[in-house]
Amino acid sequence: MTTITIDSRQRVELIDITEKVRAAIRDRGIADGLAVVYTPHTTAAITINENADPDVAIDLVMALNKLVPFDDHYHHAEGNSAAHVKSTLVGASETLIVENNIPVLGTWQGIYFCEFDGPRRRQVHVKVIGT
Amino acid sequence: MTTITIDSRQRVELIDITEKVRAAIRDRGIADGLAVVYTPHTTAAITINENADPDVAIDLVMALNKLVPFDDHYHHAEGNSAAHVKSTLVGASETLIVENNIPVLGTWQGIYFCEFDGPRRRQVHVKVIGT
Amino acid sequence: MTTITIDSRQRVELIDITEKVRAAIRDRGIADGLAVVYTPHTTAAITINENADPDVAIDLVMALNKLVPFDDHYHHAEGNSAAHVKSTLVGASETLIVENNIPVLGTWQGIYFCEFDGPRRRQVHVKVIGT
Repeated sequence: MTTITIDSRQRVELIDITEKVRAAIRDRGIADGLAVVYTPHTTAAITINENADPDVAIDLVMALNKLVPFDDHYHHAEGNSAAHVKSTLVGASETLIVENNIPVLGTWQGIYFCEFDGPRRRQVHVKVIGT
Repeated sequence: MTTITIDSRQRVELIDITEKVRAAIRDRGIADGLAVVYTPHTTAAITINENADPDVAIDLVMALNKLVPFDDHYHHAEGNSAAHVKSTLVGASETLIVENNIPVLGTWQGIYFCEFDGPRRRQVHVKVIGT
Repeated sequence: MTTITIDSRQRVELIDITEKVRAAIRDRGIADGLAVVYTPHTTAAITINENADPDVAIDLVMALNKLVPFDDHYHHAEGNSAAHVKSTLVGASETLIVENNIPVLGTWQGIYFCEFDGPRRRQVHVKVIGT
């Protein structure tokens, strides 16, 4: 397992980690299998989406903030319930297909770490299995 | 594959299954690999989120119920369309990294079975692969 | 890896690919393991839900369209931001447990390709690992 460290800078933000994930898979030396990209935080998530036009990530943040209001009569005293809800909606991990030692991504697909309660120092684990 | 049986008690409820999943992985005896936690129901889901403060699960239920109203001019005659929608938003499974025969979870992460159309008797499958 | 080609016919649509996925797994000849069903597109997704009553898929489309409006002051100039948001909410892949060379699905579970920006020609990859 390889662990990537990320420093987020905003409260809600999508950070492109495609190249870091690709490097972690390449360094592992497994040609054929699966890779799981997993964040161990409960106010963050991993998603796959377009990384050609940065406006897509901006629209994703806007839409998620609108779907899950920051303040909404939540019970959790820490005040970050919206971040927990977003984490469950987007999900803590993505699973990638690995062939020829690289992840099989579509032309427009990038891998994003989703910060929902930043700024913070965060971790992402990459685990590759196969042969 | 190990199958865990769960008896939900409410219509919408998050049930912490972390220890049961951990036991299923430990009993399987695979030190290094992946574990998939999968529910075979279409009105339920699996999620990973904080299990230290029980208010987080309460807020998740509240937010999901607000996002997907129980009654909303649905077509499906069984009357549980909201549960099907929630199942697709949260997802039928979670994939965990396994090292040293235990799932790699963050400090605050627990694994939840999400009941969206209870109360019912439910199942969760845990499959571990690796070496 | 097996690639399935799909021709969607509507702007937003759920297409049942259960039999195609089952065939891809069977043809691969791996009795015991995992299968990842993955779409390489950023305006599509994969989900698991009921495929007995076709009204469930209709309600899922209706609910997703309501949650994420087609027009909502998005920045992305292509005009399909709603599709990108839905893709992140539903997710690019599903992971299935494979035993006896078939996916372990619940009685009512089917596998759907979710078109969010059609009609288009689309792809779904199926990767099986195990023994």
